Amino acid sequence: MAKASARREELRGKLIEAAEKTIVAQGHTALKARALAEEVGCALGAIYTVFPDLAALVLAVNARSFALLSAMLGREAEAAAAEGGNPRAIANRTLIALANGYLDFAAEHGGRWHALFDFRLPDGQDLPEDHLRQQDALFQHLEAPLTVLQPGLARDERALLARSLFSAAHGMVLLGLEGKLVQLPLPYLREQIALVVSAMGRGLEGS
Amino acid sequence: MAKASARREELRGKLIEAAEKTIVAQGHTALKARALAEEVGCALGAIYTVFPDLAALVLAVNARSFALLSAMLGREAEAAAAEGGNPRAIANRTLIALANGYLDFAAEHGGRWHALFDFRLPDGQDLPEDHLRQQDALFQHLEAPLTVLQPGLARDERALLARSLFSAAHGMVLLGLEGKLVQLPLPYLREQIALVVSAMGRGLEGS
Repeated sequence: MAKASARREELRGKLIEAAEKTIVAQGHTALKARALAEEVGCALGAIYTVFPDLAALVLAVNARSFALLSAMLGREAEAAAAEGGNPRAIANRTLIALANGYLDFAAEHGGRWHALFDFRLPDGQDLPEDHLRQQDALFQHLEAPLTVLQPGLARDERALLARSLFSAAHGMVLLGLEGKLVQLPLPYLREQIALVVSAMGRGLEGS
Repeated sequence: MAKASARREELRGKLIEAAEKTIVAQGHTALKARALAEEVGCALGAIYTVFPDLAALVLAVNARSFALLSAMLGREAEAAAAEGGNPRAIANRTLIALANGYLDFAAEHGGRWHALFDFRLPDGQDLPEDHLRQQDALFQHLEAPLTVLQPGLARDERALLARSLFSAAHGMVLLGLEGKLVQLPLPYLREQIALVVSAMGRGLEGS
C-alpha cells in the first residue's frame, strides 16, 4: 500500500512537471492527455488515477505559477520598502512596483500567465479552497500599502479594493502586451502603468 | 454593371446582418461560412466575392459595435456634463461615467464586446485605417476630461494616457464580469469602478 501510494505520488509529480513544461512552452490549450502520457511514460488511463481530469492538472501547475508570481511581487514590495521614505511614499512606490512586477511576470512567463487568467474550469466546478487561499495571500501584497493609504477602510472593503486595483493593472498589462490599442515597447508600457497607478495611489491617499 | 454592383452591396449588407446576429447571440467564434450562406440564401463561394475572409466580416460587425459603444459613451459624457459644477468636477464625473458606460456595454452586449476584444486578425494583417480612426474617435471621449485634469499634457501623451485609463477600466470590467477574482453583483462592480476611477481622476488632477 505504501509503495503504491509512493508510485502514485511519483507519477503525480512527473505529470505536473510535464504539464508545466507544455504550459510554459506552448500554453495550456496545447495540453493533451496522450502527449503527456507519452512524455512521462505511463498509460493514458494512468493519468486519471491521479487527476480527475486535465483541468485538475492545469490547476496544479497554476498553483506553482501563483507561488512564483507571489514570490516576485514579494521581492518587488521589499525592494520598494528598502528605498525608504515616509510610509505613504513607500506605499505609493510599492503599488507601482507591484503593478510593474506583474507586467514583468506576464512578459516573462506568458504561458503561465495565460493559464492563470484564460483557463476556465469546466462548468459547475469552483476553484478549490487552496487556490482561493493562494489568491488571498497574493492580494496581501496589495492590501499592505492600501492599509497605509486608506487606514479608515474596513477589512473587506480593502480586500475588494485590492482586487479592483489588481484588475486595473491586469487590463493595462493585457492590452499593453497584446498591443491591442497601442503598440508600446515594454519600457514605455512600464511608464504608463507607473503613471496611472501613481495617480490612483495619490487619489486614494487624498480621499 | 451598376446592377451587379447593387447586388453585391445587397449581399454585403445581408451578410453583415447575419454575422451580427450570430455574434450577438453566440459570439464571433460561432461564425461559420456555411451557416451564413444558408442564412442569407447565397452560395458558399459568393461570400468571398464580397469579403476576402470571415475576419473581414467580423471587422465589419466590429465597426458597428464600435459605433454603438461610442454613442453610448457619448451619451454618458453628455449626461455627466449636464449635472453641472466646475470643469474639474465635471471631468472627474465624466471619467467615472465613461468607465461605467463601458461596463454597461460589456454587460449588455457580451457578444459584441468579445468580438471587439478577443478577436485576432490572421497573422500579418493590421487593423484597417478606418478602424484606427474609429478607435481615435472613441478615445476622444476620454481625452476631453483629461485635457481638463492635466492641461499641461502634450497631445500624444494625452492620447496614450487615455488608452492606458481605458485599459485599466477594461481590466476591471473583464475580471469583474467574469467573476475571476471576486464575485460581485453588477451594482457593487459599478461602485468599485467608480472608486478606482475617481481615485485616478483625483490623482491626475493633483499632479
